[in-house]
Order: sequence, then structure tokens, then C-alpha cells
Amino acid sequence: KVNSERLWDSLMEMAKIGPGVAGGNNRQTLTDADAEGRALFRDWCEAAGMTMGLDRMGNMFMRHEGAEPDLDPVYIGSHLDTQPTGGKYDGVLGVLSGLEVVRSIRDMGLVTRRPIVVTNWTNEEGARFAPAMLASGVFAGELTEDYANSREDAEGLRFGDELDRIGWRGDEAPGARRVHAMFEYHIEQGPILEAEGKQIGVVTHGQGLWWLQVTLTGKDAHTGSTPMNMRVNAGLGMARIIEAVHRIAMDHQPNAVGAVGQMNVWPNSRNVIPGRAVFTIDFRSPDLEKLTAMRARLETEAAAIAAELGLGIGIEPVGHFDPVSFDPALVDMVRGAAERLGYSHMDIVSGAGHDACWINKVAPTVMIMCPCVDGLSHNEAEEISPEWAAAGCDVLLHAVLEAAEV
Amino acid sequence: KVNSERLWDSLMEMAKIGPGVAGGNNRQTLTDADAEGRALFRDWCEAAGMTMGLDRMGNMFMRHEGAEPDLDPVYIGSHLDTQPTGGKYDGVLGVLSGLEVVRSIRDMGLVTRRPIVVTNWTNEEGARFAPAMLASGVFAGELTEDYANSREDAEGLRFGDELDRIGWRGDEAPGARRVHAMFEYHIEQGPILEAEGKQIGVVTHGQGLWWLQVTLTGKDAHTGSTPMNMRVNAGLGMARIIEAVHRIAMDHQPNAVGAVGQMNVWPNSRNVIPGRAVFTIDFRSPDLEKLTAMRARLETEAAAIAAELGLGIGIEPVGHFDPVSFDPALVDMVRGAAERLGYSHMDIVSGAGHDACWINKVAPTVMIMCPCVDGLSHNEAEEISPEWAAAGCDVLLHAVLEAAEV
Ligand SMILES: NC(=O)NCCC(=O)O
Ligand SMILES: NC(=O)NCCC(=O)O
Repeated sequence: KVNSERLWDSLMEMAKIGPGVAGGNNRQTLTDADAEGRALFRDWCEAAGMTMGLDRMGNMFMRHEGAEPDLDPVYIGSHLDTQPTGGKYDGVLGVLSGLEVVRSIRDMGLVTRRPIVVTNWTNEEGARFAPAMLASGVFAGELTEDYANSREDAEGLRFGDELDRIGWRGDEAPGARRVHAMFEYHIEQGPILEAEGKQIGVVTHGQGLWWLQVTLTGKDAHTGSTPMNMRVNAGLGMARIIEAVHRIAMDHQPNAVGAVGQMNVWPNSRNVIPGRAVFTIDFRSPDLEKLTAMRARLETEAAAIAAELGLGIGIEPVGHFDPVSFDPALVDMVRGAAERLGYSHMDIVSGAGHDACWINKVAPTVMIMCPCVDGLSHNEAEEISPEWAAAGCDVLLHAVLEAAEV
Repeated sequence: KVNSERLWDSLMEMAKIGPGVAGGNNRQTLTDADAEGRALFRDWCEAAGMTMGLDRMGNMFMRHEGAEPDLDPVYIGSHLDTQPTGGKYDGVLGVLSGLEVVRSIRDMGLVTRRPIVVTNWTNEEGARFAPAMLASGVFAGELTEDYANSREDAEGLRFGDELDRIGWRGDEAPGARRVHAMFEYHIEQGPILEAEGKQIGVVTHGQGLWWLQVTLTGKDAHTGSTPMNMRVNAGLGMARIIEAVHRIAMDHQPNAVGAVGQMNVWPNSRNVIPGRAVFTIDFRSPDLEKLTAMRARLETEAAAIAAELGLGIGIEPVGHFDPVSFDPALVDMVRGAAERLGYSHMDIVSGAGHDACWINKVAPTVMIMCPCVDGLSHNEAEEISPEWAAAGCDVLLHAVLEAAEV
């Protein structure tokens, strides 16, 4: 078993960097806080005898040597970046559990045939730069480096420029690594494990996703002196499309979700009818047919809403992945480890996107999940217990030891 | 008649201060640009022999002496502040036309018995600090100085602190002036005069208004992994209330309008269900019963929407005035001046709020309007012609000469 106290201490130490406003974290990707978090993680890894690789996307590869260095390594990875009002565990648990696995292996004096590489993938959250899982997507060859470098945040700053600015761009070509297997350990971010009273989620599948950025163009005008029939109200169009997103998701129950998280209107003044609205729709389903149908229906309904109000409309996809099936052999390995350790477990579908979803395209991949309180995530109040954290990390240790051939 | 070229030149000169991004202006109240605009206006007035009074709300009173200085003066006033993406005429036309009236009176060598005071009222727009017409409201005794000083902008900066910062707070107690009559000349900001082919709007009434700031409290949560039935989505609640505002206004046609111009959600991230939404409703009608009914129905419907979604709700009034009837004798004076000058005219109700609406509570008041292209206002593309501007200013001159007893 891993050292659960050390794992928890590391989580708490990392959480001091980029503190939030309500007990969580704001350590968004490619900010100064992100750079500080990366440096702390690197220092910890180097203290544990690991060496760093860094690619042109800022993905960090901390290598613990194996008895046979030429064998393809086993990867353990997740992300250190957070939402603007994020929790202390989302992503961080997976990275620091990778470190804890290596620390434990060293403590126990175990030697694996294969090297073990603990990875911090850049910009998993997609909060500052859409899409999410940007740099693992480039690693997997699903997105291009140029595309990634050109992505802009709300202030118009570019991903590539910000990566250079914080000094975490490496030389290695993204994807130029052979991966024997990759494990990602993550909090569930949903309510199922807690409700079912299970310690471990064995993740067999992941939901697919569409992010659609909608731009509505109307006409700024005075809220008082413009007659109702002369208005071209982009804010009203946005409201109707938000309702349509909800209705479409409800009509595809079960196994489908939809919402609008980001929305802005211009000029955003009390007495000006909004002339422009930009907002992002998030549709997900583990069922490809439903996912495709939701997008298609939204596009039809949104066009009708815009036409009725006289609004211009543009819909740009800013994030997409198909539903994912993780590697059956690795899934068995995780389930077996939970079983041997005597942890209660169940098979589960990931509701969120994860770096593992992209890496699964180029190497056998699997995920392990632990419960989180009330299923709450992307919220500063996100919480887990030290025991929950350690149980999943134990499963990770056992599965990795098997995959890396102890 | 006034010097129409000089009036237009002054408008264009003022528009250079606080330029917008699309040909209009961003000279919001109590910004550095506002301070610069005030200084230019003061310098022009002083060059025309006027002297300045300044009250504790930053209201500027530029006095042209009368033959009998002890008589109550005739006021001409409007505002130099603009929307964040405002036009070059909204407010500015009324202030600079006041100056042009004095300049013309001097040119013609005319002497009035009563002094004439040209006024720039602080924070008419209400864009940066709600409510609109804040400082004329204090002058009229309808709002307190403490209330005004404590109003906060989106960054949490206070009105009182910003007024001190730009150096435009005077010593005079707001409202400590006797007003014989006040005239406000303004662009219509609506489509009626242009559609009817009239040069002059004789403003008999003004619409009443309610501004209601709504705060919805839900729960930040992950857009992917939170089941639909566990969501407490403040953004969805906002969307439904925006639609309700529209429906309520439509159900009170004619002579009623309603919209939401300002809206913000938190944390405003693509993959976070909004846990908080704050937005401002703007309802108006010239009919007090309709105005009251719209507010009441909105409060009922919004509470039901919030309850259905499990959201907390708070509704705070942040602006209000009842429908206004301007002074019949002054209305006749304006109509008579337009008639004598041979300008086409019609009686009209102001759709927007104006400083004159507050001053009307403490002194005989009236407004004059000129058309604006396509009825467009609160938009950088707001436009009028030099001829339209001059016609209203001629009417203003004649009415003021009569009121000030030439
Ligand atoms: N795990 C996680 O929250 N990733 C961010 C991308 C997503 O929204 O699913
Ligand atoms: N005239 C004008 O636009 N005033 C601002 C206050 C309002 O919204 O009516």
C-alpha cells in the first residue's frame, strides 16, 4: 500500500499554489501559478530520483528508470491545471498519485522491468483555452501544434505565447514517445460511487462531447425608446437557445447532458439591448448516436430562433471527442487489483473528458476513479477523504506494478 | 437662429474625448475621459463669459448673468457622460446646445432679465453606476447623497471615491438652487420623429421605469459528470427569466417595453454549470398601472422559475421613476417656438429617462427632441444631421429667451 499521509500532504502542499477564493484553487493553465505548481512537482520528482522530459506543448514527463530502459514505459498521467474556481483534487490527484506510486516503489525497494513515467498534461481543463485536453490531443495526433498554439483566451492571449512566457516549452516533438500503457487516476466528479457506496470506479468508457460556440449578432439599441417590434435582441436569442439546449438534453435522457456554462453579451449595459452574444454549448453522451442527434437538433433549433428574431448566427465547434472505450486488458488489471486489495468497486462511465480519452487513441489506456463528496466538482468546495484518495492510489500502484512487470 | 456650424464643430470636438471603438464614444461617468470632457466644456463656457458653480455630486452649473441677477435663473441641462459604446449626441447635444444658446445671445447682443445656467448633470447614463440620472435625482431630493456616493461599479469602485479621484467634487449642497424653469434638449433615441418626418418633438410626457437586479444562486458543478436531475443551474434560470421579461412586455403592448441588457454568470467557464447569475431587468411604460403590473408579474414568475430549478433568488430595485408629465406652460412655449420658426413638430412621449424627469419634481421643466437616424441610440452608430441639431437648438433658443424674459 502507498503512504497515504505523504500523498495527502503533497495534495495540500500543491493546493497552496494558486489559491481560490473559497478554499479551492485558481491555478489556470499557463498562468504564473501554473508555472509555480509545475516547478514544485518537478522538484518533488527529481528528489525521488526521476528525470524530466518536456515537449513543445509543455507536457511534463517525469521518468523513473526501469531495469530494462529500452522497454516502452508505463505512463501515469493527469493534469495540474484547474478551473478558475476549481477544486484541489481534479487532475492533481492523478499526477501526485503517480509520484506517490514511484515514491512507494522506491520505499519498498521494488524494481520494475519497464520505466514508469509520471505525466502532467498541459491545459486539460479547457477553461482558459478551448478545447479541453488540448496538449494530450496534440500528443495523440488528434490536434495540431499550430492549432494549439493559436488558441486564444478571453483576453486574446495565445496559448503558444503564454507557454513561452511562463518558460515551460520544451524541445521534444509531441507524440514522439512509445507508450506501453497509460493509467489515469481521477476523482469521479459525479455522484455515483458515493451513492453506491463504492471505493473504486473501474472506468470502462468515457462520454463523447461537443462544444459549440455560438455567436449571435443583433443591434445595440436603447432599452427604453426602442419599440418592441424594432428590437434585434441578441440576449433574448441566447436565452432561447440556452433553454433549447436544456430541452434537447432532457429529450435524450438517460445518458445525455447539455448546458451552457460560458456566456457574454455586449455591451452588457443595463439600458442597452445586447447587440452581440457569444456563448458555448456543452453536449455529452456515451452514446455516439445521441451525441450526434443533439448537435444536429440544436443547430436546427438555434437557426430557427435566430431567424425569428432577425439575428445573425454563427456556430463554431470548439471541442469534440467521440465516446471512448478503454483497453479491456487494462480494465481487467484495474478491476483485479481492486479485488485483490479488498476494495469495493464497480464499473463506471466517465462523465467528464480526460487526457486518457485522447491517449487511448494511441496506446492501451485505462482510468481509475475515487468518489467525491456529493459528486461536486468544478467547484471550490470539491472534497474527498484521505482514505478515498489512498484506496485508488493503492489500486493504481498494484495495476502499474503488474503492467510495468515488477 | 443659432450658429449651426459652431454647434456642430463643438459636438465633433467633444467627440474626440473618450473615443469609442466604432466611431462613437466611451466617455463613461467619472472616468479620466469624463474629467477631460468636463474641462473642455468649462473652458468653452468661461470663454463665453460664464462662471462655474459645482455641487457635491459634480453637477456643473455654468452661469450667464442676467440683467437682474437676483431673479431665479432659467436652466438648460443634459449630460456629457456616455454609454460604454455610446453615440456622440446622447446628452452631449443638450449640454452643448445650452452653450450655443448663450453664445448666440452674446453674438446678438441680447440681454435677458433672468440669468441662464447651462448644466452638465453627473452620471445620467447609469451604465457605470446604477441608477441612471443619479446626480439630478439627488439635486431633486429623490435620492440621498449617501446613497449616490455608495453606488459601486462592476469593479467595486464607489461613485463618491471616483468623483473625488477625478477632482470634480464641488462644495455646493446639491439642490441648493432655485430654478425658474429647466429645458432639456435631447435626441429622440427612438424612431418616431424620423418616421413621421418631423423636425421637432415637443415632449409632453416621459415613461416611468423599473430596474430590477436579480441574483440567482445555484451550485457550480461539472457540465459533463453531473446528472441532469442534480443540477442547480443559475444560467438556465436566468435564460427563463429573460424570456419571461420579454413575454410580460409583449403582453402589455402597446406602450410598454422590457428587456435585460446586463447579465453575468459565474464562474463563466465552458464546462461549469453556472452557480450564480446576476442580471438587470429594465421595464418601462408611460402608464403607471402597466409599469406596476409588469414588475409584479415578473416577481411572481421569477420566483416560480427559481423554485422549479431549486435556485435561491433575490430581486433588488436599482432604479425607478414614475411616468412624468412635463410643465404645460413650458410645453406650450416650446410648441409655440417651433410653430413661429416654421419647423414641423409633434407632441411626443420620451421613451428614455432624462435628468429633466427628476428636475420636473422641483421646478417647471420641459424637453425638446430632434430625430436620430433609424431611431438608433446607445449604439456607436447613433447619428443625426447638423440641420436636425440646429433646428432643435433654434427652438431651445426661442423658448429660453421667452422664459428668461429677453
Ligand atoms: N475532468 C475534467 O473536468 N476535464 C475537463 C474537461 C471536461 O470538461 O470534461
Ligand atoms: N437618455 C438616456 O439614454 N438616459 C439613460 C437612462 C435611460 O436608460 O433611460
